[in-house]
Amino acid sequence: MRFLITAGPTREPLDPARYLTNRSSGRMGYALAGAARHDGHDVLLISGPTTLDVPPGVDFIQVETAQQMYDAVRDMLDGVDVAILTAAVADYRPVAYSEQKIKKQGERMVLELERTPDILGSMRSVFGFKGTLIGFAAETQDVESYARGKLERKQCDMVVGNDVSRSDIGFDSRENEVVLVFPDHVEYLEKDTKEHIAMHIIEHATIIRPK
Amino acid sequence: MRFLITAGPTREPLDPARYLTNRSSGRMGYALAGAARHDGHDVLLISGPTTLDVPPGVDFIQVETAQQMYDAVRDMLDGVDVAILTAAVADYRPVAYSEQKIKKQGERMVLELERTPDILGSMRSVFGFKGTLIGFAAETQDVESYARGKLERKQCDMVVGNDVSRSDIGFDSRENEVVLVFPDHVEYLEKDTKEHIAMHIIEHATIIRPK
Repeated sequence: MRFLITAGPTREPLDPARYLTNRSSGRMGYALAGAARHDGHDVLLISGPTTLDVPPGVDFIQVETAQQMYDAVRDMLDGVDVAILTAAVADYRPVAYSEQKIKKQGERMVLELERTPDILGSMRSVFGFKGTLIGFAAETQDVESYARGKLERKQCDMVVGNDVSRSDIGFDSRENEVVLVFPDHVEYLEKDTKEHIAMHIIEHATIIRPK
Repeated sequence: MRFLITAGPTREPLDPARYLTNRSSGRMGYALAGAARHDGHDVLLISGPTTLDVPPGVDFIQVETAQQMYDAVRDMLDGVDVAILTAAVADYRPVAYSEQKIKKQGERMVLELERTPDILGSMRSVFGFKGTLIGFAAETQDVESYARGKLERKQCDMVVGNDVSRSDIGFDSRENEVVLVFPDHVEYLEKDTKEHIAMHIIEHATIIRPK
């Protein structure tokens, strides 16, 4: 099967030096790419900036901004059976970009932000993607209910929820403990390495029938 | 001699997931710490988040925000002969921090920012530092004149200016080409590895007499 996986944060620049971003090591997405490739699938990984090595045999596109990731996903969807969007895409970006480094002004500054394009939300409605669609929800409260809301709004087949407020499984950690939310049931995976969690998710991904 | 060196970016969080930061690999500061240690000096490196290894024999304090870096520098200045502040400290931070991940609202959002404490500018006037003070100026235009302005305003003995708009020597690159601005003269260093540039700067640092 052909997998498309997104990973890492995006960076939304104000000027050449400053940017807005999200905490994300990219580990979960890279582990998923490695696990899918290990199982013999074709894998394309589209990633924001991380310090991780691309797993052997995985095709790779490097992006920086949410817009670049949106464009890359849209352009590479042809023939994809399973899309797993793990990237921590920045929701907002500065409205204006300054080519020169902005000099310090007063004690206060107001930064105007606008929404970035919604990649997961565009998969069905804009890109017409018919394959298996898996989203991620990194939350600090009510993880399962936010994950279910995301599943329904974005027409996913599965949403993986995790509680990033817990320091043992949060950002940058090597372990994770997740809840898999499906349209008709929920499954809890015990705390484990991101590599083992990835293997479980890839197994599920290959047997789900897209709606 | 005793050196205090700052390096890396700082991160200024809006909520547990999102933050504002500056591009900075930390390489120049880590190279300076390694070069100073190699020359037999006592070195304390105070660094924001980077992926670099701390040079052997260098004391290390990890920080995240500009405020934490400010506090660490102030608390560790006792007995320091030379302070080299290379960190790309964020100038502004969000006024409000949300303990819970902020949910997406409308198409636009306004982020209110306030100035972070000015570490370099506090060295003489607030901390009463009497040793040799070296600052860095990463600029995208008029590098030498901005560096000279910084030297004067912040009462430095030397400011190292570099042009980060050039992709060959800018953020994340392994080489640099800098101008050393002193109160009474200027010196241009040719493009070289950050390690070689660091050796030159450390040599200068040990012979400058603080004003």
